[in-house]
Amino acid sequence: MPMQKMLKEILTRVREGKMGVEEALERLAHLPYEDLGFAKPDTHRALRRGFPEVILAEGKTPEQVVSIASKLWEASPRLLITRANEEISQVVKKEFPEALYHSQARAVVLDRLGERPTRPGVMVVSAGTSDLPVAEEAALTAELMGNIVERTYDVGVAGLHRLLDQLPKLRHARVVIAVAGMEGALPSVIGGLVAAPVVAVPTSTGYGASFQGLAALLAMLNSCAPGVAVVNIDNGFGAGYLAGLINLGKEAI
Amino acid sequence: MPMQKMLKEILTRVREGKMGVEEALERLAHLPYEDLGFAKPDTHRALRRGFPEVILAEGKTPEQVVSIASKLWEASPRLLITRANEEISQVVKKEFPEALYHSQARAVVLDRLGERPTRPGVMVVSAGTSDLPVAEEAALTAELMGNIVERTYDVGVAGLHRLLDQLPKLRHARVVIAVAGMEGALPSVIGGLVAAPVVAVPTSTGYGASFQGLAALLAMLNSCAPGVAVVNIDNGFGAGYLAGLINLGKEAI
Amino acid sequence: MPMQKMLKEILTRVREGKMGVEEALERLAHLPYEDLGFAKPDTHRALRRGFPEVILAEGKTPEQVVSIASKLWEASPRLLITRANEEISQVVKKEFPEALYHSQARAVVLDRLGERPTRPGVMVVSAGTSDLPVAEEAALTAELMGNIVERTYDVGVAGLHRLLDQLPKLRHARVVIAVAGMEGALPSVIGGLVAAPVVAVPTSTGYGASFQGLAALLAMLNSCAPGVAVVNIDNGFGAGYLAGLINLGKEAI
Amino acid sequence: MPMQKMLKEILTRVREGKMGVEEALERLAHLPYEDLGFAKPDTHRALRRGFPEVILAEGKTPEQVVSIASKLWEASPRLLITRANEEISQVVKKEFPEALYHSQARAVVLDRLGERPTRPGVMVVSAGTSDLPVAEEAALTAELMGNIVERTYDVGVAGLHRLLDQLPKLRHARVVIAVAGMEGALPSVIGGLVAAPVVAVPTSTGYGASFQGLAALLAMLNSCAPGVAVVNIDNGFGAGYLAGLINLGKEAI
Amino acid sequence: MPMQKMLKEILTRVREGKMGVEEALERLAHLPYEDLGFAKPDTHRALRRGFPEVILAEGKTPEQVVSIASKLWEASPRLLITRANEEISQVVKKEFPEALYHSQARAVVLDRLGERPTRPGVMVVSAGTSDLPVAEEAALTAELMGNIVERTYDVGVAGLHRLLDQLPKLRHARVVIAVAGMEGALPSVIGGLVAAPVVAVPTSTGYGASFQGLAALLAMLNSCAPGVAVVNIDNGFGAGYLAGLINLGKEAI
Amino acid sequence: MPMQKMLKEILTRVREGKMGVEEALERLAHLPYEDLGFAKPDTHRALRRGFPEVILAEGKTPEQVVSIASKLWEASPRLLITRANEEISQVVKKEFPEALYHSQARAVVLDRLGERPTRPGVMVVSAGTSDLPVAEEAALTAELMGNIVERTYDVGVAGLHRLLDQLPKLRHARVVIAVAGMEGALPSVIGGLVAAPVVAVPTSTGYGASFQGLAALLAMLNSCAPGVAVVNIDNGFGAGYLAGLINLGKEAI
Amino acid sequence: MPMQKMLKEILTRVREGKMGVEEALERLAHLPYEDLGFAKPDTHRALRRGFPEVILAEGKTPEQVVSIASKLWEASPRLLITRANEEISQVVKKEFPEALYHSQARAVVLDRLGERPTRPGVMVVSAGTSDLPVAEEAALTAELMGNIVERTYDVGVAGLHRLLDQLPKLRHARVVIAVAGMEGALPSVIGGLVAAPVVAVPTSTGYGASFQGLAALLAMLNSCAPGVAVVNIDNGFGAGYLAGLINLGKEAI
Amino acid sequence: MPMQKMLKEILTRVREGKMGVEEALERLAHLPYEDLGFAKPDTHRALRRGFPEVILAEGKTPEQVVSIASKLWEASPRLLITRANEEISQVVKKEFPEALYHSQARAVVLDRLGERPTRPGVMVVSAGTSDLPVAEEAALTAELMGNIVERTYDVGVAGLHRLLDQLPKLRHARVVIAVAGMEGALPSVIGGLVAAPVVAVPTSTGYGASFQGLAALLAMLNSCAPGVAVVNIDNGFGAGYLAGLINLGKEAI
Repeated sequence: MPMQKMLKEILTRVREGKMGVEEALERLAHLPYEDLGFAKPDTHRALRRGFPEVILAEGKTPEQVVSIASKLWEASPRLLITRANEEISQVVKKEFPEALYHSQARAVVLDRLGERPTRPGVMVVSAGTSDLPVAEEAALTAELMGNIVERTYDVGVAGLHRLLDQLPKLRHARVVIAVAGMEGALPSVIGGLVAAPVVAVPTSTGYGASFQGLAALLAMLNSCAPGVAVVNIDNGFGAGYLAGLINLGKEAI
Repeated sequence: MPMQKMLKEILTRVREGKMGVEEALERLAHLPYEDLGFAKPDTHRALRRGFPEVILAEGKTPEQVVSIASKLWEASPRLLITRANEEISQVVKKEFPEALYHSQARAVVLDRLGERPTRPGVMVVSAGTSDLPVAEEAALTAELMGNIVERTYDVGVAGLHRLLDQLPKLRHARVVIAVAGMEGALPSVIGGLVAAPVVAVPTSTGYGASFQGLAALLAMLNSCAPGVAVVNIDNGFGAGYLAGLINLGKEAI
Repeated sequence: MPMQKMLKEILTRVREGKMGVEEALERLAHLPYEDLGFAKPDTHRALRRGFPEVILAEGKTPEQVVSIASKLWEASPRLLITRANEEISQVVKKEFPEALYHSQARAVVLDRLGERPTRPGVMVVSAGTSDLPVAEEAALTAELMGNIVERTYDVGVAGLHRLLDQLPKLRHARVVIAVAGMEGALPSVIGGLVAAPVVAVPTSTGYGASFQGLAALLAMLNSCAPGVAVVNIDNGFGAGYLAGLINLGKEAI
Repeated sequence: MPMQKMLKEILTRVREGKMGVEEALERLAHLPYEDLGFAKPDTHRALRRGFPEVILAEGKTPEQVVSIASKLWEASPRLLITRANEEISQVVKKEFPEALYHSQARAVVLDRLGERPTRPGVMVVSAGTSDLPVAEEAALTAELMGNIVERTYDVGVAGLHRLLDQLPKLRHARVVIAVAGMEGALPSVIGGLVAAPVVAVPTSTGYGASFQGLAALLAMLNSCAPGVAVVNIDNGFGAGYLAGLINLGKEAI
Repeated sequence: MPMQKMLKEILTRVREGKMGVEEALERLAHLPYEDLGFAKPDTHRALRRGFPEVILAEGKTPEQVVSIASKLWEASPRLLITRANEEISQVVKKEFPEALYHSQARAVVLDRLGERPTRPGVMVVSAGTSDLPVAEEAALTAELMGNIVERTYDVGVAGLHRLLDQLPKLRHARVVIAVAGMEGALPSVIGGLVAAPVVAVPTSTGYGASFQGLAALLAMLNSCAPGVAVVNIDNGFGAGYLAGLINLGKEAI
Repeated sequence: MPMQKMLKEILTRVREGKMGVEEALERLAHLPYEDLGFAKPDTHRALRRGFPEVILAEGKTPEQVVSIASKLWEASPRLLITRANEEISQVVKKEFPEALYHSQARAVVLDRLGERPTRPGVMVVSAGTSDLPVAEEAALTAELMGNIVERTYDVGVAGLHRLLDQLPKLRHARVVIAVAGMEGALPSVIGGLVAAPVVAVPTSTGYGASFQGLAALLAMLNSCAPGVAVVNIDNGFGAGYLAGLINLGKEAI
Repeated sequence: MPMQKMLKEILTRVREGKMGVEEALERLAHLPYEDLGFAKPDTHRALRRGFPEVILAEGKTPEQVVSIASKLWEASPRLLITRANEEISQVVKKEFPEALYHSQARAVVLDRLGERPTRPGVMVVSAGTSDLPVAEEAALTAELMGNIVERTYDVGVAGLHRLLDQLPKLRHARVVIAVAGMEGALPSVIGGLVAAPVVAVPTSTGYGASFQGLAALLAMLNSCAPGVAVVNIDNGFGAGYLAGLINLGKEAI
Repeated sequence: MPMQKMLKEILTRVREGKMGVEEALERLAHLPYEDLGFAKPDTHRALRRGFPEVILAEGKTPEQVVSIASKLWEASPRLLITRANEEISQVVKKEFPEALYHSQARAVVLDRLGERPTRPGVMVVSAGTSDLPVAEEAALTAELMGNIVERTYDVGVAGLHRLLDQLPKLRHARVVIAVAGMEGALPSVIGGLVAAPVVAVPTSTGYGASFQGLAALLAMLNSCAPGVAVVNIDNGFGAGYLAGLINLGKEAI
């Protein structure tokens, strides 16, 4: 760490009388903060916990993705590429033969550690089959963080019995990710049934007045059940990450 | 009916040879249509069935309301004034001592017939207590049309058991009016539980991203349960009228 | 039905003294509700009435559609696939040679019963020729439910005489489906002409400030004629289903 | 006109050899354009035709209105103050005893000429009674320009016969102003019935999803009938002015 | 005209004593209105004036366009197909060799009359070169109605001198069509410079916060200059038609 | 609990041979679910943990609030009334002398338990002083759940050093509530600095293009920092409740 | 400065051998950054230049404003309170007799320095008289920063000559603030006339489709003239501050 | 300059007595203003300073771009074509072999002068790598104006240390361009760190509730840091131009 070296050098020179206190003061005041290390612990922890770096592939060329991945892969034991289509997955795999493509989650994972999740408590629930890519992205993200994830899909509120059948499982979860498009009612209903935090993910599933997920987003923000918070439309990664954090708890941070 | 007199006169003059066929043809082509009577049956039916004329008091002065009411009350056995506040109700009652003010429904009713509803089948369900004025406006409207209305309030989806308790009643209804603000999930859940048509009424209950009922409106339009249709935000009258029509069926029209 | 078996077993064991009342109480309290059968009657009725299961093809791969269809087709005498393009219809027909593709309605129908509709009363009216796919989806849906459907297309309000020509037919309908894009005025005008319920369907027909059907949607929600309710933009299926329900009446539920 | 004096002076000095061509050139190039008179003809015409200057009272204090009015009243034979409430009208009348307050149109008029309108051809049609202030503002504006205005109010599309009764009058108009809130269908229907230009005025009449006139505005912009143009929500003055211009024709300009 | 025949027959039979007045009355009351001819004069006038029928090609297949065109072409001396791309123009030309494709206006014209416009007074002004298709559609429409159209393009407000150069022409116009995207300021500026009516056409030219023409639309609706009315985004046809009507005046209607 | 009595009775009668298994089966299948107790554990837990029932006072009359409070206060050791203005607090205090009004949080608390929070870990951070009511509502809610809450207000991103000063505290929190209006950047910046979950609360603080909190809401939903979830605009209670749940962890549920 | 003292102490102790290099390293790494002084220069400069601290009074009680003002007034030679109504100005003046209330700008100023602006170059232009409060807030802000401000009000684009008259002045400005509501065209027109940067301020002046300034905001963002940037609706302070910065240039920073 | 010739001629003829003062007056009053030269200085300056003419390629065919470029290239020493894709760059290069394509900035530059920028002071900062095309367009524009541009990319607020590392550079800039999508927080944070003007550029980077850059746009407009102004979404050119103007200062205008 060059910064720490520099700091040490300043202090050593002060100690050895080679640098005056005033001059040292002056130099310290102008050091870039990051070099004082305030962001370092984060990096340390990331390395230690093996939490994957994330690349949002959407809106990048396959070349850009590979180039960024190459850089990150040197510094991180795990790497997650989200919103990767078939083409990008091919290009990445060519470069990194160890890469795994989760086509439903539209995600590529590189993983040197190969550890299995050990912390139970995350449940991912989706309203319809079209919400699957988002739900899987959430589940995969939480798993990569070390969470054991229970999945229950296609239990929308129009067939309430399908959801109620899942109550015992829902009641056991420490955190529930509720994924839904259209009217986005699922998180409200789940929020009324369980006491665990609910991370709501609106999806762009639907047409017409769903306005690409706006209807579901607004519904979730107005949930009459407490304990519900919302992430961006189609943001499976964000939901999985937050739910993973909640489930892992303080010790994980 | 002056129009019919005029028509008769034309025909009589044709018969008597006082008017040529061409001239009669010409005059007939320019007669106002309404005078041909196409809208009359409506009026006749309205009078016969005693269905109330409706005045939306909101945005009118008490004087305007009384003035319009006076005119309508001559021609109709029943009169409904919606969105009437306390002040308007006072002014109307002064003019029409027989007027009844339903304060929860914010409605004034004048009724010469005094018949009780006879047709069971309409159920009004509301998510919260703040939705009550809208729900009551809907119920009152349907009742004035002759429908027996079952009310169940404060059964929002965040406490699903409250709603599920009402399932037997819901299953008996021929048409359900579901009133909800905030996330507006109630109609979707009910639509999945019953086979009867559901008239969904979004309300402006809520704050922030409810955007005065927009969130509930969009949610209801995107209901994943079939058999649901939506009326305007806070439009209890419209919902009650439509549900009443559906329940009374063809014979009522 | 495994649940009923389980319930029976509990009760039998109580009767035979093999299980205490307290223990039985405890077990009953934790049974999943659906297994208590509350959703079953729906399924029974659906089977009995032959009402089609529905798959929204849009946003699904042909393979997904076929896979879901295969499962549903085992359990249902009729099957409706909406928003199916030519390609999907081909793939479905290959798998199910009995499938019929209604290209205007963009719908595939599988039907073991082959019964003809018997209940008159539904009328579908559209403003323009571009609204046809939505109108046909509505008509087809209502027909599959057993309703005889009268169609009248291209009678927008800019040429009022075309609509007024249809008044006798409109007056005979028990429920009218009014389909319109652009300014969406058709349901208001029809709602003022007939006494039957009007199911309004905004379409995305138009450009510019139609904002993909938003203009028509808002117009219909604000209809000054009572008796009008609105479904989602382009939601022909939802309108047909609701109108079908209304027309079939209580006995159909 | 000081500008013309100055120009004359320059030219005279050039002629008299007191100013060089180059210097004159330089001075001419920097003259304010208005002083070259390009806006003057407008003012001349305004004075000649007696067309009123307009003050939008809304958002101004009574004092500000009076102060601006005093200035304009010196230069103009007529003065129109729009959106003036009772209080403003009182303050203005106190200052200008000749002022007339048209309470329905919420407008104050000062008029030295006192000429009656002479040009027939403008018809103002409104959908509901709540649209009256806007309709009256339009009518009054057109009248002040010299147009004879035919008014027909409360002929919304939900009671089509009321409108159709007015067809003969509508057919005689050279330009129709159609004022409507809620679903804003009136201009489309009128546009389909008459061949004259239709100036559509959306009003903020309505509630819920009317969004203060947005629904009516969008509907009117998407009118399926050609020959319709739209002004701002509640902009009766703008509609009256435009319709007046159209009716007066080229000679008026 | 079958209707007129029928009417004549009724009247003749009444005259000849073969039908009673009451019976005739009854039959007349139930005739479809259109058959009473109320829309006929329109058709007559259209034929007489040779005003083109219009087909909006956008959203229709080439086959549909040709099929509708074939029908209309029988009844009308002129035919206008708007928003026609190259492909549609080819298919139409194959069917109707006399068809002319105006590629800039994206319009196909069929014209048996071949008369040249005779009525001067319409001026079309556009802000940028990207607004050209809309401006040309407007100009072409007005020309087909018989108006001589003056065109001035690329005179946006950011280079005011380009617009001011056109003042003399602008001052001569009886009606100005102002076409602009982006900030849509052109109609306001023109509205302040001329006394003629201004038909404002917002276009979808722009990006980002232009929101496909919404910015220009709102700007034009809020024009601080009176005498401006607005049509739908990109609606060149509507603007041309309205301006044409205004310019032709009452005699044209 | 009457339901449990009824269940017991059925089972006892079965046991005693007074009711057949089939009959018992039938009766059980029609019992309301709630009575089967599925929601009971919630209630039990709520009582046990002393978590307060919540009344949203906004939109209710003081009388309604008192009436609902009276009912809840019988069944709950704690009661929270949110969005209570001075007037409501007075009326409530008159009825419940033990009520405490937290004027900054606009909340009334009734508390029989009087226990102090014991679980550290929640930190509430606000961007500006105008966000205080929302921040305090969040803090108070979390405290009533048993969480020790650290507050840091007025540390908006425009003065980053104020926020960075709080880093050590922020790093110790298990969950951070970030409250901000205007551009809503605070949660993104905090999300990048800490590894704990961040509950973002947009407020309606701001003017113009803040659109009553919409700007902040959208910004927070689009946070580039992972681990951030959003609640409704001004929803301090929801944020406090969710953060409280997260901090208390599974054992609290 | 306590931080500098602490730093000095550490360094001194290192120098004196009382603290080891490693220990000093550790302590330095955990110091709060602000204390390293990175934000200090700002404060110093603010004090030196006498630039006023700003309090947004809107949404604060008079007491809150006075309390914050008291604190800031100790540390700053100038103080600006924006959006202060009459009541707030009274309360502030009572506390600070030296306070000056600029009623048009709705601003209170406290100023110990009393220096007059010396730097010419800022011009504030407004479209209408209703935009005056915003324009004055902008002008006052820039003046307090030391800029000489030229004001020109009521020169909207509908009367272009009024604006063109100001061209010589506009051409001399180093930066122009253009304030406009309604269609917001003024900055585009000015941007095309001058080469200096234009700071555009949309105002909420207008009604209907101005949507509280949204129309003007969008127009300004889409300005076809380069060199224009936009601040929030009604944000006179922001515009004045930015223009002041630009005009003062680097030396002022 | 033909206009000046004409003016001179008039003046000369007046001088020589060949034209009367009145006649000259008349002719001067009707001259097109532009010909009076008011826009000319701009052109002169543009030529002198070599500032590039700009063509927005988006929405134009390659042929149109080349045609406009050919015309401008004759009159200008530099030419900038923005939003040019690969295809357009090829076509332009074929026509103008001296053209340079900056693929990241999506811009083609033609430059006869080939001078290097000399004025330091502009810094372009971007939040993410996806914002690069917009950032580069801004940088390139400012450089073409003669500004030396410092670039710092991928320093979004979620990793604050990356941004803080750049503080020394940021502090040296005379104007900062801050480019960001998603939550758009970057300009607010920078605005709080530096005293120079900040030109904020929202980008359409993001998904879901970013609504194509709307979220970032609103955030930037609501920046709590003063000294920030905003340009249109993705408008790199506009930002570069404005920042260039500010940096070059008065002497550049």
